[in-house]
Amino acid sequence: MIIDCHGHYTTAPKALEDWRNRQIANLNTPELGPKVAELDISDDELRESIEANQLRLMKERGSDLTIFSPRASFMAHHIGDFNTSATWAAICNELCARVAQLFPEHFIGAAMLPQSPGADPASCIPELERCVKEYGMVGINLNPDPSGGHWNAPPLSDKSWYPIYEKMVEYGIPAMIHVSTSCNPCFHTTGAHYLNADTTAFMQCLTSDLFKDFPDLKFLIPHGGGAVPYHWGRFRGLAQEMKKPLLSEHLLNNIFFDTCVYHQPGIDLLTKVMPVKNVLFASEMIGAVRGIDPETGNYYDDTKRYIEAAAISDADRRAIFEDNARHVFPRLDAALKEQGL
Amino acid sequence: MIIDCHGHYTTAPKALEDWRNRQIANLNTPELGPKVAELDISDDELRESIEANQLRLMKERGSDLTIFSPRASFMAHHIGDFNTSATWAAICNELCARVAQLFPEHFIGAAMLPQSPGADPASCIPELERCVKEYGMVGINLNPDPSGGHWNAPPLSDKSWYPIYEKMVEYGIPAMIHVSTSCNPCFHTTGAHYLNADTTAFMQCLTSDLFKDFPDLKFLIPHGGGAVPYHWGRFRGLAQEMKKPLLSEHLLNNIFFDTCVYHQPGIDLLTKVMPVKNVLFASEMIGAVRGIDPETGNYYDDTKRYIEAAAISDADRRAIFEDNARHVFPRLDAALKEQGL
Repeated sequence: MIIDCHGHYTTAPKALEDWRNRQIANLNTPELGPKVAELDISDDELRESIEANQLRLMKERGSDLTIFSPRASFMAHHIGDFNTSATWAAICNELCARVAQLFPEHFIGAAMLPQSPGADPASCIPELERCVKEYGMVGINLNPDPSGGHWNAPPLSDKSWYPIYEKMVEYGIPAMIHVSTSCNPCFHTTGAHYLNADTTAFMQCLTSDLFKDFPDLKFLIPHGGGAVPYHWGRFRGLAQEMKKPLLSEHLLNNIFFDTCVYHQPGIDLLTKVMPVKNVLFASEMIGAVRGIDPETGNYYDDTKRYIEAAAISDADRRAIFEDNARHVFPRLDAALKEQGL
Repeated sequence: MIIDCHGHYTTAPKALEDWRNRQIANLNTPELGPKVAELDISDDELRESIEANQLRLMKERGSDLTIFSPRASFMAHHIGDFNTSATWAAICNELCARVAQLFPEHFIGAAMLPQSPGADPASCIPELERCVKEYGMVGINLNPDPSGGHWNAPPLSDKSWYPIYEKMVEYGIPAMIHVSTSCNPCFHTTGAHYLNADTTAFMQCLTSDLFKDFPDLKFLIPHGGGAVPYHWGRFRGLAQEMKKPLLSEHLLNNIFFDTCVYHQPGIDLLTKVMPVKNVLFASEMIGAVRGIDPETGNYYDDTKRYIEAAAISDADRRAIFEDNARHVFPRLDAALKEQGL
């Protein structure tokens, strides 16, 4: 079984974007903005948006199940206030839940949170609980920078984040650490901000004792961990100077990396440097890089090919494709077992 | 000949730091602050600070010449205003110039600029010219984020930077794109901010047509290019979607990467993914990672060992160790030729 742990609903029917645009146009006059009930997307429209896109490519490439969350760049937590995000998150999460209901063999949901700059992270808990209890979602996406590139929230080790971590541990759900659109002209969203956030989050964990406080907390760092595996010697050396434990003890029981690295040498490095148990298959398809690599003739984001070509054992490949995802997402594992898988 | 293109004066006599602390203590009362003349460091003190540290390690490891600039984390352009930075940069650059005079076979200077948040980059030109003309410096360090982690300066493609680029091209000096200390608690300085800045700067160049305007402009991106080589497929794919030329044409005549990557797999990736002509030997010694790697028994930042062990030809190794630095730093090449080297 091949589980892609990083998929976003990037192909939602256009009505969703139209609704959001109306919400944004009325930020200062929310009473004039669209009502939730005004968004009307039928099951057929959902089916079509998935069958023609993600599901088609999953079948072509040979992956079975995608952990599916709202489009990352559309979270845009920097827009409006908590109420703006709360309404928007509820809508986006419901659509992902409906996709998972329509295609239970191929999609399972993960939630975006209604984060907002300056808002207490604890304010996200009702939506988190709703997504777990009502929708059976198995993970969340946690944005370490709700400002969209101004980085004025406290680091992930700050106690203000702890109420979310307590719920994550209580429900057995991991967080993918994933920022959204950059509204800072310094940072290109998918070429700089995403990768920077991955590296930043890792370093926030390294310098802190977060996982002493939460030994069961699990973070999945996407995009192959940003710059982390490439600079693994640097991070080992920095931890050593800070008198931290070896990274294998200090972080690697809690931090995992996905395989959204879009060329063979990158995946080769990732699988060589990181323990296999810390690597989870993912493609972020259909996402930031949608083209075909002229050097290979294959889609850049067809990461399954790179894992298949990596110099690792079949057991390691199976761990990356399936076992590790079941370990990091215990609710996914339970759901699969219920299906007899 | 082995040229290390990335060395900072991290071991300056303590009097320098004391002077800076007094300057900072009197930011709002500069008339009470220290005068430049109050900083008194003898040639013997300079010699000692170098012979016992960088020069000792250069001899032990077998490198010959270091391009030597003021300590990156001490630039701290976010402190004070333009006058604060102007005085501080002049002092730090003079010390590096004196080191180069004392050890002409082993050190050659590169300048920090008196950047300051919100100040016009053109205000740095007098110090730049002084360092080239009076001190014979061969490069500059350009900080894309003088705010120290708030990233509120315009991207490097913005026309406000152009006066600096015009001078760089006029004098034939490249810029190492190097941030300084982060004063944003989200970003660890050497573990996140430095690497993020490398990736960010690369992406600012990728999305722009900067090198169409300045075909002779050269940027050296340190720390192995941040996340760039590890994600080379992502960057190629993003450029492709933006209808940019191939990166080999679009950026690789102008952007170069140093080898400050502190483990063998990282260097192996760098030398595999990047054309050899774009890779310049560097260690950033004595810098962010000073310890010994227990996995190898060698210093993390002894990057010469990794280059020697990389699966590249002797000609490629020579290019990385010497020829590429002479190409990117033409004033260095001229200075060496004057010495008959």
